[in-house]
Amino acid sequence: MPRTLHFWVLGGDLRQVKLARLLQEDGHSVQTYAMEHRPDPGSLPGSDTIRGIEQADCVILPLPMTGERGLLNCALSDLHVSADEIFAHLIPGQLVCAGKVPPKFRVLAERKGLILRDYFEREELAVANAVPTAEGAIQIAMEELPTTLFGLDVLIIGYGRLGKILAHRLKGLGAQVTVSARKYSDLAWIEAYGYRPERTDQLTGWLGVYDLIINTVPTRIIGEAQLADLKENSLVIDLASSPGGVDRTAAAQQGVKVIWALSLPGKAAPDSSGRIIRDTIYHIMQELEL
Amino acid sequence: MPRTLHFWVLGGDLRQVKLARLLQEDGHSVQTYAMEHRPDPGSLPGSDTIRGIEQADCVILPLPMTGERGLLNCALSDLHVSADEIFAHLIPGQLVCAGKVPPKFRVLAERKGLILRDYFEREELAVANAVPTAEGAIQIAMEELPTTLFGLDVLIIGYGRLGKILAHRLKGLGAQVTVSARKYSDLAWIEAYGYRPERTDQLTGWLGVYDLIINTVPTRIIGEAQLADLKENSLVIDLASSPGGVDRTAAAQQGVKVIWALSLPGKAAPDSSGRIIRDTIYHIMQELEL
Amino acid sequence: MPRTLHFWVLGGDLRQVKLARLLQEDGHSVQTYAMEHRPDPGSLPGSDTIRGIEQADCVILPLPMTGERGLLNCALSDLHVSADEIFAHLIPGQLVCAGKVPPKFRVLAERKGLILRDYFEREELAVANAVPTAEGAIQIAMEELPTTLFGLDVLIIGYGRLGKILAHRLKGLGAQVTVSARKYSDLAWIEAYGYRPERTDQLTGWLGVYDLIINTVPTRIIGEAQLADLKENSLVIDLASSPGGVDRTAAAQQGVKVIWALSLPGKAAPDSSGRIIRDTIYHIMQELEL
Amino acid sequence: MPRTLHFWVLGGDLRQVKLARLLQEDGHSVQTYAMEHRPDPGSLPGSDTIRGIEQADCVILPLPMTGERGLLNCALSDLHVSADEIFAHLIPGQLVCAGKVPPKFRVLAERKGLILRDYFEREELAVANAVPTAEGAIQIAMEELPTTLFGLDVLIIGYGRLGKILAHRLKGLGAQVTVSARKYSDLAWIEAYGYRPERTDQLTGWLGVYDLIINTVPTRIIGEAQLADLKENSLVIDLASSPGGVDRTAAAQQGVKVIWALSLPGKAAPDSSGRIIRDTIYHIMQELEL
Repeated sequence: MPRTLHFWVLGGDLRQVKLARLLQEDGHSVQTYAMEHRPDPGSLPGSDTIRGIEQADCVILPLPMTGERGLLNCALSDLHVSADEIFAHLIPGQLVCAGKVPPKFRVLAERKGLILRDYFEREELAVANAVPTAEGAIQIAMEELPTTLFGLDVLIIGYGRLGKILAHRLKGLGAQVTVSARKYSDLAWIEAYGYRPERTDQLTGWLGVYDLIINTVPTRIIGEAQLADLKENSLVIDLASSPGGVDRTAAAQQGVKVIWALSLPGKAAPDSSGRIIRDTIYHIMQELEL
Repeated sequence: MPRTLHFWVLGGDLRQVKLARLLQEDGHSVQTYAMEHRPDPGSLPGSDTIRGIEQADCVILPLPMTGERGLLNCALSDLHVSADEIFAHLIPGQLVCAGKVPPKFRVLAERKGLILRDYFEREELAVANAVPTAEGAIQIAMEELPTTLFGLDVLIIGYGRLGKILAHRLKGLGAQVTVSARKYSDLAWIEAYGYRPERTDQLTGWLGVYDLIINTVPTRIIGEAQLADLKENSLVIDLASSPGGVDRTAAAQQGVKVIWALSLPGKAAPDSSGRIIRDTIYHIMQELEL
Repeated sequence: MPRTLHFWVLGGDLRQVKLARLLQEDGHSVQTYAMEHRPDPGSLPGSDTIRGIEQADCVILPLPMTGERGLLNCALSDLHVSADEIFAHLIPGQLVCAGKVPPKFRVLAERKGLILRDYFEREELAVANAVPTAEGAIQIAMEELPTTLFGLDVLIIGYGRLGKILAHRLKGLGAQVTVSARKYSDLAWIEAYGYRPERTDQLTGWLGVYDLIINTVPTRIIGEAQLADLKENSLVIDLASSPGGVDRTAAAQQGVKVIWALSLPGKAAPDSSGRIIRDTIYHIMQELEL
Repeated sequence: MPRTLHFWVLGGDLRQVKLARLLQEDGHSVQTYAMEHRPDPGSLPGSDTIRGIEQADCVILPLPMTGERGLLNCALSDLHVSADEIFAHLIPGQLVCAGKVPPKFRVLAERKGLILRDYFEREELAVANAVPTAEGAIQIAMEELPTTLFGLDVLIIGYGRLGKILAHRLKGLGAQVTVSARKYSDLAWIEAYGYRPERTDQLTGWLGVYDLIINTVPTRIIGEAQLADLKENSLVIDLASSPGGVDRTAAAQQGVKVIWALSLPGKAAPDSSGRIIRDTIYHIMQELEL
């Protein structure tokens, strides 16, 4: 992308603000909309209408794109604008990048001849987001535990994207890291990177050695029986998306502290998250040869 | 120490409570005093007088030993008891372990024939305490910064105990770590461990590349000129003991965010700190062949 | 596998010997054949015929199973025995584990009702083998280069199993590690683990900064143009299976040192390789519920 | 040192050749002597007499400076020249840098008014040299052992410069690293960096768990009793300078493989060693404000 492009960046939270600033720093022309309560507002142009959006080479909608009732997700704005209305102003052939696009808008985009891309579905974004998520989980553990992470016995359930980065960082802090997985090949990876491997289906009865358990698997792994196993004062952090991997009702009854932490990238590190979205959008544009 | 010993553990904060519990778990007989507001009080014996303290094989006073006006430092107690009074009940030949002993009590101990040891002066405690201090600083950085520590340009000033552990852990989290020192041999160490070396006396003019600066050196390194150098939105964490290494007045004037963080081990990880004190007291006793 | 099983271990090299010893140490009954020149032969039973092989719960053939003209691969034996003859002695329902099984024998096994498993096709074996391969490559680099790996600028081409482990270990030794890949998601992983990412299709013109280049990709990446780029005295190690990723003819003409290193696990660490095969065979048996 | 200086570089091995080349690359004027059999001789000026040496801003003698009978150590030369003769050509005020200077020449230098500096006594050189020494030891272990270093149980005796770097690198390769030391503070460091600590005076009886033992302490630690403890097929690498830390006679009798490896930097990584000497000489000159 040697050219200067014209971007419209709409709605969202601090991630979206950072994204707009980064595009500007990269030399692009940027217009923002529906983020008028951003910090240091003067340093970015802002429009109070969406008129002119049809001029944009790329329109960037936030992650998630919509909030309640199909309205544009815009935490830093007083505006109430429907995503429909935004789409109505776009013109055939325009590139729209958005996160977690509802099916309805995919259909709409196709009908209008828009080039719609959901950056949240990109594998490289998911990988890169594992970094702020892992740091967010580490911050929570540091805040909650009366001990250092150094020397702590930690179990990470699952060796997907998040499990991989969490294990790497916790080892970097000197924790004693065990990772559980189901596949033999994942167990081989876990061992090759220097963590202790365990089989996820054989955890029950052996959970009492861990000071900290971090679940990354979106199925119910930690139920009543597993909770009964836990060491006193151990902490459980559940990073799995809804419905989570921990029986929170049983945990409350048994007095086990469980923290269900979602959407950490935007909370723990909005600037890094904005940068990750920027990079992903550039990749999309490179693939489209824009 | 195969024998069961009798310990008295007095005053202090959560570290002292943890220390008492660990001694008990190790099979020793433990009496506590002046920590009646500890959490879960029933699990530890507590006395409301110091009568019987003369029976102790080892008397453990907190870190620091005294608060205002020579009173025993006891954050978890309503008692007001002077350290003098405690010393008055001790008998010749008794072992007293305390942290940051004021000179007056060294003299007093000698006069009374007490075996007084200041565990805060032990090198191994200082080394071990660098671990919770480093984690405390990392937690602060995670809380304050809108970015991940991963990829962050960090400068650590000083390569003493704290600088060494901080550098190691921040590298483990994926930060880009620069460490400054004065001696050529320290610079050689910094390089051999994979950090970027800089000379502390040549930092001025080059501070604008760092997102995070952590000072560990108790002399004024970051003055007006250095502050003027800093990148916008960079964070300075000063871990140096009083008077600190940063000109806080100038920082306030220039709008630079400085966090002066002291006594992190007790705050960030009281349980680990209690364990470190326990280990150090055991070392003292081994050297005394108790 | 709580039971004591009866294994026959045939042919192969030191890996196969180690495998037999490990099975014996695990409490199994082991018979060997066609490895009579093994070191310390007395410590393992050996047969000079294959009579009795039909009693085995599991027959283990080496990696690769056959050498020239369908003969059993047996580097530690003077015997010339065809794989056909071995198969002729096996009975329906018997488990045979072998490495790199030629198609003919798959057909033969099916026809005879044997349970034939090729352990070389197991993902967990491939992952685990990346460890001795990476160490073998590191050993070669240490032997060939007049510099330390610490501080060396290294390029690893490809981020598959081998690239991942190589990058991790070289970073652990303090090298400056760049990894090239094609997919954006792999580039995101490379960055998240703290290596410098490059696109494999954009290496040309930028190879002159590397002291060491390790190729893991089995397509011709390093041709004449790339070789012309290289820094004087740089070393190229090609770990890609035939035909390799480097134009060796051009390299010879241009005076570039290229080491084409294959089958490193068996050479660099036969004991570890034997252990990896043992683990994989156990996994196979667990899946068969033997 | 913004100026172009005139260096004479005499004798030595490949380290000294690399040193001369690096000085030349840095823009200095360099004359060599007594290294006429160096590889690629044409790329460096060489003199066959020492006439003109009195013009040098800095004269660099090798490490060690002298070989037998006070002759200049010059492994890449047929010359036989005494260090006395070289000193006879130097003039008052000239800077001479040399490694392991015999006492006689210190006296001589003082008498002649030379500024003589022994770079081998510099702490930063000793620290930096620990890096190629550690890599040399790792290379030996890789060559000798039939297993990977990954997962290996390794004991490092001593936590001085070499022990520190060895532990760091072996951990980076995935070994299970135990380090023994005598002082409590060193044991605290060992733990804080994530290695298993052991007391050097309590090793006897517990050596049977290690696959590899690397001694760095120049006192007899591994005697007959310790050797009897060792696991079969374990490897001992002794890096301690004469007389070493292992009873080699007893080891031979007991069939324990001991490799006594000295002077590894010059053997394993002459180019890196030459660079380290160059850096140290620059430091010396900076301190002299040359």
